[in-house]
Amino acid sequence: MRYKVECNLDYEVQVAGTPFVFNIEAQRRVGQTVVEEHLSLSQDLAPKRFTLPESGNRYLRIHADQGKLTVYYEAVVDLDPVEIAPAEVQEMPAGRLPFEVVMHTYPSRYIESDLLSQFAQKEFGHLPPGYQRVVSICNWVHDHLDYVPGSSDEKTSARDTLLQRQGVCRDFAHLAIAFCRALGIPARFVSAFAWRLFPPDFHAVMEAWLEGPEGGAWFLFDPTRKAAADGLVRIGIGIGRDAAEVAFCSPCGAVTYGKPEVRIEALHGSDTDRLTTTAVTLTAA
Amino acid sequence: MRYKVECNLDYEVQVAGTPFVFNIEAQRRVGQTVVEEHLSLSQDLAPKRFTLPESGNRYLRIHADQGKLTVYYEAVVDLDPVEIAPAEVQEMPAGRLPFEVVMHTYPSRYIESDLLSQFAQKEFGHLPPGYQRVVSICNWVHDHLDYVPGSSDEKTSARDTLLQRQGVCRDFAHLAIAFCRALGIPARFVSAFAWRLFPPDFHAVMEAWLEGPEGGAWFLFDPTRKAAADGLVRIGIGIGRDAAEVAFCSPCGAVTYGKPEVRIEALHGSDTDRLTTTAVTLTAA
Amino acid sequence: MRYKVECNLDYEVQVAGTPFVFNIEAQRRVGQTVVEEHLSLSQDLAPKRFTLPESGNRYLRIHADQGKLTVYYEAVVDLDPVEIAPAEVQEMPAGRLPFEVVMHTYPSRYIESDLLSQFAQKEFGHLPPGYQRVVSICNWVHDHLDYVPGSSDEKTSARDTLLQRQGVCRDFAHLAIAFCRALGIPARFVSAFAWRLFPPDFHAVMEAWLEGPEGGAWFLFDPTRKAAADGLVRIGIGIGRDAAEVAFCSPCGAVTYGKPEVRIEALHGSDTDRLTTTAVTLTAA
Amino acid sequence: MRYKVECNLDYEVQVAGTPFVFNIEAQRRVGQTVVEEHLSLSQDLAPKRFTLPESGNRYLRIHADQGKLTVYYEAVVDLDPVEIAPAEVQEMPAGRLPFEVVMHTYPSRYIESDLLSQFAQKEFGHLPPGYQRVVSICNWVHDHLDYVPGSSDEKTSARDTLLQRQGVCRDFAHLAIAFCRALGIPARFVSAFAWRLFPPDFHAVMEAWLEGPEGGAWFLFDPTRKAAADGLVRIGIGIGRDAAEVAFCSPCGAVTYGKPEVRIEALHGSDTDRLTTTAVTLTAA
Repeated sequence: MRYKVECNLDYEVQVAGTPFVFNIEAQRRVGQTVVEEHLSLSQDLAPKRFTLPESGNRYLRIHADQGKLTVYYEAVVDLDPVEIAPAEVQEMPAGRLPFEVVMHTYPSRYIESDLLSQFAQKEFGHLPPGYQRVVSICNWVHDHLDYVPGSSDEKTSARDTLLQRQGVCRDFAHLAIAFCRALGIPARFVSAFAWRLFPPDFHAVMEAWLEGPEGGAWFLFDPTRKAAADGLVRIGIGIGRDAAEVAFCSPCGAVTYGKPEVRIEALHGSDTDRLTTTAVTLTAA
Repeated sequence: MRYKVECNLDYEVQVAGTPFVFNIEAQRRVGQTVVEEHLSLSQDLAPKRFTLPESGNRYLRIHADQGKLTVYYEAVVDLDPVEIAPAEVQEMPAGRLPFEVVMHTYPSRYIESDLLSQFAQKEFGHLPPGYQRVVSICNWVHDHLDYVPGSSDEKTSARDTLLQRQGVCRDFAHLAIAFCRALGIPARFVSAFAWRLFPPDFHAVMEAWLEGPEGGAWFLFDPTRKAAADGLVRIGIGIGRDAAEVAFCSPCGAVTYGKPEVRIEALHGSDTDRLTTTAVTLTAA
Repeated sequence: MRYKVECNLDYEVQVAGTPFVFNIEAQRRVGQTVVEEHLSLSQDLAPKRFTLPESGNRYLRIHADQGKLTVYYEAVVDLDPVEIAPAEVQEMPAGRLPFEVVMHTYPSRYIESDLLSQFAQKEFGHLPPGYQRVVSICNWVHDHLDYVPGSSDEKTSARDTLLQRQGVCRDFAHLAIAFCRALGIPARFVSAFAWRLFPPDFHAVMEAWLEGPEGGAWFLFDPTRKAAADGLVRIGIGIGRDAAEVAFCSPCGAVTYGKPEVRIEALHGSDTDRLTTTAVTLTAA
Repeated sequence: MRYKVECNLDYEVQVAGTPFVFNIEAQRRVGQTVVEEHLSLSQDLAPKRFTLPESGNRYLRIHADQGKLTVYYEAVVDLDPVEIAPAEVQEMPAGRLPFEVVMHTYPSRYIESDLLSQFAQKEFGHLPPGYQRVVSICNWVHDHLDYVPGSSDEKTSARDTLLQRQGVCRDFAHLAIAFCRALGIPARFVSAFAWRLFPPDFHAVMEAWLEGPEGGAWFLFDPTRKAAADGLVRIGIGIGRDAAEVAFCSPCGAVTYGKPEVRIEALHGSDTDRLTTTAVTLTAA
């Protein structure tokens, strides 16, 4: 399955030399191949690049000149998910979790999983462990929250969301991750290009660490169900404990900006229908 | 229906002149008649008495001597609840609420009803208004919380309880009140002697302001269902916005104390069975 | 000292019969005499009036017709504060507090004084008790908070304000009250017309219960120092535990409104300068 | 400077196969050389070892048998801190921070630096940036908090600590880190063996990323001042965003345990006095 993704970001920089860090380029990981990509900046700048080893996040840093700054990124990306039947996907016992995965069972700024442990036990503790339990968590989040743009802000945490019963994709992901971690299931926050998301935007979803016949892997879930129902088509950009660690743009200074324009299209030959009822893993450990 | 209530409180006072305020005497209100009562103190003190007009709470203040202090109270109380069929009990529109009742729609220290407004709307907003909706709230609280002695402390609020999914009678009452207020239903906190509560102790329940054929009144509910299932037998002691305003004893100073001993028994001729399926109002506005 | 106060409130009512409760009329209390007053409504309605006994708050209820609604209130009010030298004003020991005052030592929705008890002890616990300690609390609040319109909302509590270090008059009052209660000093929230407040608006201040040579009384403090520096000229409207209990207008339904217009002027013969360095009590118990 | 460290941990394991993860071995990093070390387990188990690349934390995993389990670790460690005069140590501008350091400016579970940003600005925003500002932060934390064993629990965050004005080493570190991050200074949590800490125990301190003449490095601070005043002698064990990521032992299952025994002694020839007034960096980026 081949996709083309694009994003276009506009800024007005007040002070010369304002530093920006971007995390907008598609990740290179098992199951997600960047076939070609192109970045262009409206200012004549040489971005400094860095890929964080533990996440694979690709960062760009620039020091922008005063005035208008446009950042345009496009890429052609192949997704090659491994298909595994849900019934074959288990939770991994704590004693066998890879050490670098263990940290994704810890609470974080926006995901107070330790405070939601009783809540998670009462709602999901009695369900049989496995892929289907994470689906149940995502269904619960979908069914109990309203998706209301503007209903949350950058301080909103999973605990707040649970009480307010509304939020945006970021909040849905936080709450689903919180319930997973509260049950001992490693889970992390993912920013992505999402196919058929409407209106188009950067999307936030989650991954849970589960174990298929071939071993442990990060499995993708979208508790908002806002993107294409017929396939878990997400092109990962950033991974982190929660939204505190994943931002597509972090400027330092006085900057005004417009709404990001994001587009994703399926290229000739894509066949997403076959994914419909299947568990999909997009990466191996 | 006639009941005898008793309580015995033991203290060890470190400093002479330590002030104590007690609120242990049964209220005198419509439907609850104190037939006889007796208070005894192990120290030779003249308590100062005060009944707060807006609540009817009866306060005693003493300045205790150093050493052992025992406070014993016993009373014979007649309950004469008005019986009204649940189907005839409605919620009262905001524009008709008595002014002194309106304040019980406001949030308070332990009852952040403003923060739970979305939650309450999502869970109970679609139910038909009336007595039965308050029953549904109490059922929800009963079904979603575990009654676990020691699981909360004096800082625990309704918001905390909702996340922790456990608590004691105080927490059950706070959460049920929070949901009522979030829907615009006036509700308040009540401390009481409760028949067949086991183990015997002071109990915390709630009252909601609803409207029967004869007008508005405070209706009693016990979301813990810990007391006698066959009758809403509660002998009210203290009323307030939440537990911050209702304490059976408030000493000021260094005091050690034992567990209060509380007893309530039905006297000859009581007939509580007929209450089972009936809405009961214990007071008029 | 004689003052004229006015306020003008504009609403657009969407649904006929929308209930409104107003609390805009000057209180009648010791030291504050309403010489004359006038209320006019643009709609032909008969307001229902109620004065809450425990606070003296004067409420008006109307059921408004659809369309434009203007509420105009004017009054001439004499203030006759008792002047007491600060050095003669003491804190009242807990064991002597009037029972109806005790409740103002409890935490409330926006004033989590129980959670700030260590903070208050560390900052103010070592100061000698008395009027001057409450002044120190107000000074601390003034010096540590920025007055920033729009920096808080209707969910902001004293705990939030302490962390955010900014707020409006409501937040300044909440925090100062919180510190008082944390030290055992009864304190309550007051809405008022405030002389020389700029821009003119309803103001929020606080009162602490202290004891002068003639006995206990509520003493007025304004931690914002936004109103006239040369006199504690506040014409009290509403009193309550915190802002949850004091609102100048509580509509129930779909209503749009403009900014309230408020005016206060000193009438001929007023002499406020002599108040500068004096403790002032505006009411007796 | 050469130190010998020891720790002895006792457990009673209820269920055979209970997994444990330990993080008790001294880190190997620039300025901290493990000369020799020895681990012994009372059960015949082969620990699985893992060093997390981004932190250098050394993890041991075992699956313990039922019964008594003792874990003993001893090591001889050389500390060779680089000495830099405080006046030469600057804060690093955001635009030059290494990418792997940037994440330590983000808020985390126990360090809500985003919520304390106004507070930090008001207290420390006016101070000249540099090493001395971090010292001022640590001094503030030391002066405003009481060190009270048992005054906090595993849910206590920096925000709570700021209000409660008390805590243990973990809380002191969290609050100091919170203020640093709120000002844009990267800071992280460190568990360590600390010389002359009394009573001996694992200690929690913090590191801030600053820039000396030779470039950026993590500088060590101890806002508790509980360990030896005459030298920043800390032998680092674990590094993380906050206490959620750094635990010396994480068992999964029913386990009882005793208090850990910890010892650190200076070996022949150590000269710590010269450190007294010097900034010390224990590692390079």
